Amino acid sequence: MEFSFAERFENMSGSAIRAIFALLKDPEIISFGGGNPAGEAFPSKQLSDISKKLLDSSPQIMLQYGQTEGYSPLKEELAAMYNVNTDMIQITVGAQQALDLISKAMLNKGDCILVENPTFLGALQTFKMYQPSIKAVETDSEGIIISDLEAKIKKYSPKFLYVIPSFQNPTGITTSLKRRQAISDLADKYNLLVVEDDPYGKLRYEGSELPSIFSLNKTGSVVYLTSFSKTISPGLRVAAAIGAQELIQKLTIGAQGTTVHCPILNQAMVYEFLKSGGYEPHIENMCRLYKARRDNMLKLLSEHMPDNVSYTHPEGGLFLWCTLSENTDATKVFKKAVENKVAFVPGISFYSENPKKNTFRLNFSFVNEEKAKTGIIALAKVIKEFN
Amino acid sequence: MEFSFAERFENMSGSAIRAIFALLKDPEIISFGGGNPAGEAFPSKQLSDISKKLLDSSPQIMLQYGQTEGYSPLKEELAAMYNVNTDMIQITVGAQQALDLISKAMLNKGDCILVENPTFLGALQTFKMYQPSIKAVETDSEGIIISDLEAKIKKYSPKFLYVIPSFQNPTGITTSLKRRQAISDLADKYNLLVVEDDPYGKLRYEGSELPSIFSLNKTGSVVYLTSFSKTISPGLRVAAAIGAQELIQKLTIGAQGTTVHCPILNQAMVYEFLKSGGYEPHIENMCRLYKARRDNMLKLLSEHMPDNVSYTHPEGGLFLWCTLSENTDATKVFKKAVENKVAFVPGISFYSENPKKNTFRLNFSFVNEEKAKTGIIALAKVIKEFN
Repeated sequence: MEFSFAERFENMSGSAIRAIFALLKDPEIISFGGGNPAGEAFPSKQLSDISKKLLDSSPQIMLQYGQTEGYSPLKEELAAMYNVNTDMIQITVGAQQALDLISKAMLNKGDCILVENPTFLGALQTFKMYQPSIKAVETDSEGIIISDLEAKIKKYSPKFLYVIPSFQNPTGITTSLKRRQAISDLADKYNLLVVEDDPYGKLRYEGSELPSIFSLNKTGSVVYLTSFSKTISPGLRVAAAIGAQELIQKLTIGAQGTTVHCPILNQAMVYEFLKSGGYEPHIENMCRLYKARRDNMLKLLSEHMPDNVSYTHPEGGLFLWCTLSENTDATKVFKKAVENKVAFVPGISFYSENPKKNTFRLNFSFVNEEKAKTGIIALAKVIKEFN
Repeated sequence: MEFSFAERFENMSGSAIRAIFALLKDPEIISFGGGNPAGEAFPSKQLSDISKKLLDSSPQIMLQYGQTEGYSPLKEELAAMYNVNTDMIQITVGAQQALDLISKAMLNKGDCILVENPTFLGALQTFKMYQPSIKAVETDSEGIIISDLEAKIKKYSPKFLYVIPSFQNPTGITTSLKRRQAISDLADKYNLLVVEDDPYGKLRYEGSELPSIFSLNKTGSVVYLTSFSKTISPGLRVAAAIGAQELIQKLTIGAQGTTVHCPILNQAMVYEFLKSGGYEPHIENMCRLYKARRDNMLKLLSEHMPDNVSYTHPEGGLFLWCTLSENTDATKVFKKAVENKVAFVPGISFYSENPKKNTFRLNFSFVNEEKAKTGIIALAKVIKEFN
């Protein structure tokens, strides 16, 4: 058999990051590479009890086909949480599926979309399957630069803007309130859909909570993605897209043709955990743990990194973003680092345009303090060799 | 916000069947419409125990991110079952996701694909999202007609052929061994990918098991879809695509950009149930139950339907296919039937070309014998009104 694959695969590298993850299987490597929650923080006892209770009491619901839109009790709970109608909600198999379904609903080949520069590499991979023209909007320490956004909306008439306003992946930066409002206003002014991805919003370790762009917008221009991957469990694959009913209906048709529905048991486990009263204390515990890990990471970086390495100070989330001296190639540092049993993700994978080769992402949620110390000391040593 | 959706949604009706399923929520309606397994046949006690054991003993595996390709123990088990290498397997969130990922891997807009006429309407919905030209190959009581298949391969140079050789959805017909071999031979001769969907293969109530087209083919021309939706639980959403490594790699890239992976707990539950020794006895029980329901359905049809209604005699699976007198419109019968609290799926939804309006599909797995009797008597009464 000689395969003739679809054109959309012609520019799919995907291999760089997949190769990185393959490397990370080596248990001796201290990895700041992935976006994994801390395994020891999962509410496993509660979820085990909930799962048993659900399968014992309602097996014919848990194990049978369910509705494509999602498990009704979970949708009702989310509707109350976000002050929306249930017909504005589509439950997805992780927020990644929401990105796929939104792309499916919106994109013809060649359509333009806007993203932050840099942005979540997994989103770029999903979008690329629909063969859009991806234009990058420049960012600074307050998020996306509004003048650049407006210029690019005018120039490219994009189908949507993709943003991660809270504790962005990969930079850890939070979009300021003023910019959130400005994004919402531009969306209305130019009839632009904003895809607001918010997997980390609940994981804030300092500063005050900011309203989502979705909550600031009154005209249905924003579709908001929430996920339980970082707050409960990524393995369960439960997330939701919340937005205008007209869009959600298209996502439902898309979901019908891909996964049919998110597994019922998984949705019901999330729902029961939300209702158990255990969710908020669990989030508080996670925040305590991750704050300590972030603080530890920042302390280690300040103690061990050469002065020409800069890094962000995220108020929450899982990641921070490092910038090396201008001529240092983080991919080369990466290769040397892996030889020294420490890993991260080179920044180049997160750029859709104008990559800055001297950047990389560090995750601080997964590795404990002791291992983080060993890892950062080893990494600093490698970086010094490149100075 | 005024949405400008992707072109692929322009010809998506989807509404007919969705409207039907909405109707079926009425608990008073006896529905032969869905493809639901019998709820009372789920191995719920075993799955409950397995789920608890997994979450108690390995929470950091069950709840963490997993590999896109699938949970390794399940892949190894499938590799042994189907005598393939593990790198020939992609675990999917239901077989529907496999259809989506295969379409993504193979189809450019306008490419041709071939399907049986009639075929599974869910597959048609998935394929249509990729805007192919769908050509229907005619079928008879032995499956796809080989001369028509070869003529259409020559005429249209299709990207793939989609077939359900065992207890086909919607007809219940099984493709004969001779035709399976012929399909495999034509695939090789014309470098044609065959997508062999086999969700029902294990649910055989009479006759001898036939080899899959996948097992007959030696050149990697066939991708085989197996699913645990009908044999264990559809709610868990665990299935697999098995085929040439080159194709599977593309499915993995596609899965990475949609669901990231099938939930780990769900895959592990299926794996542990397969390994428990409970799977084969469970299938035997299901077959006993479904055979009784099929026999009951055939008896009821022979007793109550007018002579000009014909129907298939499936050797397994969940469905049989009814043909009314030539000028009777099954959609009109459907509307009248629903008023009389009984439902099915009109045949027209299953045709990609040349629909036969006088056909419909009956499911016999979901409704128990007593309800089936009430339902078929009511349906026969409605049909007689149209004679």
